[in-house]
Amino acid sequence: MINVTVWGENVHEHKNEKVKSIYPNGMHNCIADFLNKHSEIKAKTATLQEEEHGLTQEVLDNTDVLTWWGHCAHDQVSDEIVKRVQKRVLEGMGLLVLHSGHYSKIFKTLLGTSCSLTWREAGERERVWVSQPGHPIARGINKCIELEQSEMYGEPFAIPTPDETIFISWFEGGDVFRSGVTWKRGNGKIFYFSPGHETYPIYHNEEIQSVITNGVLWAKAEGTKWIDSCPQVPIDSAKEPIKKGN
Amino acid sequence: MINVTVWGENVHEHKNEKVKSIYPNGMHNCIADFLNKHSEIKAKTATLQEEEHGLTQEVLDNTDVLTWWGHCAHDQVSDEIVKRVQKRVLEGMGLLVLHSGHYSKIFKTLLGTSCSLTWREAGERERVWVSQPGHPIARGINKCIELEQSEMYGEPFAIPTPDETIFISWFEGGDVFRSGVTWKRGNGKIFYFSPGHETYPIYHNEEIQSVITNGVLWAKAEGTKWIDSCPQVPIDSAKEPIKKGN
Amino acid sequence: MINVTVWGENVHEHKNEKVKSIYPNGMHNCIADFLNKHSEIKAKTATLQEEEHGLTQEVLDNTDVLTWWGHCAHDQVSDEIVKRVQKRVLEGMGLLVLHSGHYSKIFKTLLGTSCSLTWREAGERERVWVSQPGHPIARGINKCIELEQSEMYGEPFAIPTPDETIFISWFEGGDVFRSGVTWKRGNGKIFYFSPGHETYPIYHNEEIQSVITNGVLWAKAEGTKWIDSCPQVPIDSAKEPIKKGN
Amino acid sequence: MINVTVWGENVHEHKNEKVKSIYPNGMHNCIADFLNKHSEIKAKTATLQEEEHGLTQEVLDNTDVLTWWGHCAHDQVSDEIVKRVQKRVLEGMGLLVLHSGHYSKIFKTLLGTSCSLTWREAGERERVWVSQPGHPIARGINKCIELEQSEMYGEPFAIPTPDETIFISWFEGGDVFRSGVTWKRGNGKIFYFSPGHETYPIYHNEEIQSVITNGVLWAKAEGTKWIDSCPQVPIDSAKEPIKKGN
Repeated sequence: MINVTVWGENVHEHKNEKVKSIYPNGMHNCIADFLNKHSEIKAKTATLQEEEHGLTQEVLDNTDVLTWWGHCAHDQVSDEIVKRVQKRVLEGMGLLVLHSGHYSKIFKTLLGTSCSLTWREAGERERVWVSQPGHPIARGINKCIELEQSEMYGEPFAIPTPDETIFISWFEGGDVFRSGVTWKRGNGKIFYFSPGHETYPIYHNEEIQSVITNGVLWAKAEGTKWIDSCPQVPIDSAKEPIKKGN
Repeated sequence: MINVTVWGENVHEHKNEKVKSIYPNGMHNCIADFLNKHSEIKAKTATLQEEEHGLTQEVLDNTDVLTWWGHCAHDQVSDEIVKRVQKRVLEGMGLLVLHSGHYSKIFKTLLGTSCSLTWREAGERERVWVSQPGHPIARGINKCIELEQSEMYGEPFAIPTPDETIFISWFEGGDVFRSGVTWKRGNGKIFYFSPGHETYPIYHNEEIQSVITNGVLWAKAEGTKWIDSCPQVPIDSAKEPIKKGN
Repeated sequence: MINVTVWGENVHEHKNEKVKSIYPNGMHNCIADFLNKHSEIKAKTATLQEEEHGLTQEVLDNTDVLTWWGHCAHDQVSDEIVKRVQKRVLEGMGLLVLHSGHYSKIFKTLLGTSCSLTWREAGERERVWVSQPGHPIARGINKCIELEQSEMYGEPFAIPTPDETIFISWFEGGDVFRSGVTWKRGNGKIFYFSPGHETYPIYHNEEIQSVITNGVLWAKAEGTKWIDSCPQVPIDSAKEPIKKGN
Repeated sequence: MINVTVWGENVHEHKNEKVKSIYPNGMHNCIADFLNKHSEIKAKTATLQEEEHGLTQEVLDNTDVLTWWGHCAHDQVSDEIVKRVQKRVLEGMGLLVLHSGHYSKIFKTLLGTSCSLTWREAGERERVWVSQPGHPIARGINKCIELEQSEMYGEPFAIPTPDETIFISWFEGGDVFRSGVTWKRGNGKIFYFSPGHETYPIYHNEEIQSVITNGVLWAKAEGTKWIDSCPQVPIDSAKEPIKKGN
């Protein structure tokens, strides 16, 4: 069983009528619900408004994969929680960063770059092309996903070279974007997937649901937990006998 | 001075009236001519039909950067010459592979994958977006290059993860493609750039000319020549004193 | 169940008394035997001397992971079989290349570089350090593996930058080597692991056996099979309506 | 001319008699002095104790490559200055991180991992092997650099996979370490080089001086400055005509 924590900023859903109508229980519950349809996944939710944003050490220790959606309240996420999440990713917890999460503290912290992009909110058509057929994250997607209305996210996307580019998007207005990319940091697998603007029903799209479900299955830790320290090796524990010089 | 050899397959130019009208001296001479406008570049040409395809050991030893355009006659390039070019790339010679060169023996040999893609010849619009602003290969390009008529090359592009993705293309017919990507193999820098179909005047486009010129400047060897062997280290030359075990 | 084919060159075992005494049934059988101790693995063998080197299309189609040990007879492996293996790796078959397999045709074909290194046969001590703790391939290894007698393989190792460096070796004679490295090519995962010289009982070492077993578990295909072609997309099948230009 | 700012923590030199005797003007002045022997380099220094640590916006705007040595006072570097340096690296300023700088805020910020390692201070022998012969950073180094006394830095080194591994070190006590590695972040080239413990005269070693000088030449910006923002593209500026959906 893969334990997933679906983190939601949970702000737009309470302020914007359109978002509320699309996601009456919040985007986080929509995401957790479709993840829970998979027999190997057990998804719970956590939100910004909870104590410690719902991400206590205990919750994180019991999380195999964390998904992250945030937008207008990135700055309200405490630096301490960001460090805690970063540490768990380096230990091996998987991380899926969704849509406007490209500008979240945790994403920028793990990647080290600005993670900027260009954008346009026009409800235009997006076509999400599979660039790595047969990759487990693309399982079940036939060539591309069509989204009738989407926010445009465009290049340049200021990220380090991804380990793999799984999806690249085409936009009606003439732009392109690396919409599905992966990295490994420490023992943790990271998948960024851009479709998911709050004013369109994108997380109700079954193919989008498949990709996120696949992403969770892919991102679960496959090795053992790495407790990372910076140990001094005592001289008499050196593998080859040595003496202290001056 | 950067010595460039512009290699051309030089077949379509003699068989297809449209290609001949666009490139009366062959695509290779068009490319060499615009490269020679740069004060630091001295470009010569070589073609399939010449002795050893114009790529003698002496020519390669005096080449800093090789550009490669081929399409319908990939199979006529001798395996021996391909090995010779590969060896020079590993030593540090730069390589620019253009358009249908994605299926050339030298490109597939250096990358190890099938290098396949999807394609459509409809004379549709292509927009080549800069994905790495400020990269030396993108110097002088403002956001994107517009090509009114181009052949579509689309994802999936069956290549190893590039070191850098410099350009991504948008196509009118709804496709996308990683149109400018780099790798390093041995000491050699490799740049693949997809625009350049023979029936459109793409190599007459000044921005395309800039990118290829930038690519040559980028790909020139920056270190020393690596003569690669597989040397046995005699036991008495070991850096630490050791004896032969049984 | 993971179907593994253990490929052995199977020459030294018949010509060298020391090798024969260490591996009376051949190295390939030794490797298959310890792999078969794992409940999820079903390993068979194939050797150079068999028809089609034991690697018929049918055998490969039923192989999830192939392991490769070769040394003195690399040149006797037919180019046609090498292409067949390459194609299966790109489709998703895992590949473990062992020791002197660094100079095999299949390894050089998939990586595109010379794959050379330095070497010394002195029966010196090798210490194989874990560079990625917690990685599934390093599961069960505590910091390093000690080999009392080994052949030295040293840097420079002429390979493309690996996706991950799992092990780095220290040698008594003063050298170092990236002894466990991974790449992905197409859908296939590749793991190179250098310990395994034929005149030392290295494949009888339980920690070495663990690493190779871990490598097999890691390398199994995790997505779907990618049948790679280079399809033309008919103009009337374009995702956006377009017409043929001139 | 390449403008270099050599940043020094400048603490050990005032507290430890041995360090003071080896570097009477501070390590930063030693490094700046040997860099200034190269005709294309103009190096100045900056230290922790100066106003804004000597790294005002104006200084950084006029710096092509920054070198960084810190150890016991990493925490005293202000977060604001770290952000300023990060921004300049992403714009294209080169960065050389030296020795214990692996634990500096700027290095960890740019890489996103813990950057931990193992260590031992025994004055043991280190041998720095060239893993990429012919790379510009290794220019002039013949196979390896021998350091009679060094601090051991060992694997695991908790970094993202480097773009290139230029040097790997062997230690007398039995350990190994990736001692010279590179990344690109945004437009900035980063080179980490581990030799340089303060109680040994390592920066007086001419080969070490060559590597650092080579590193500076390699790390200078080769493209144009990338002013990174996250621009909204107005709907009527879309490259293809689109209308606002609902």
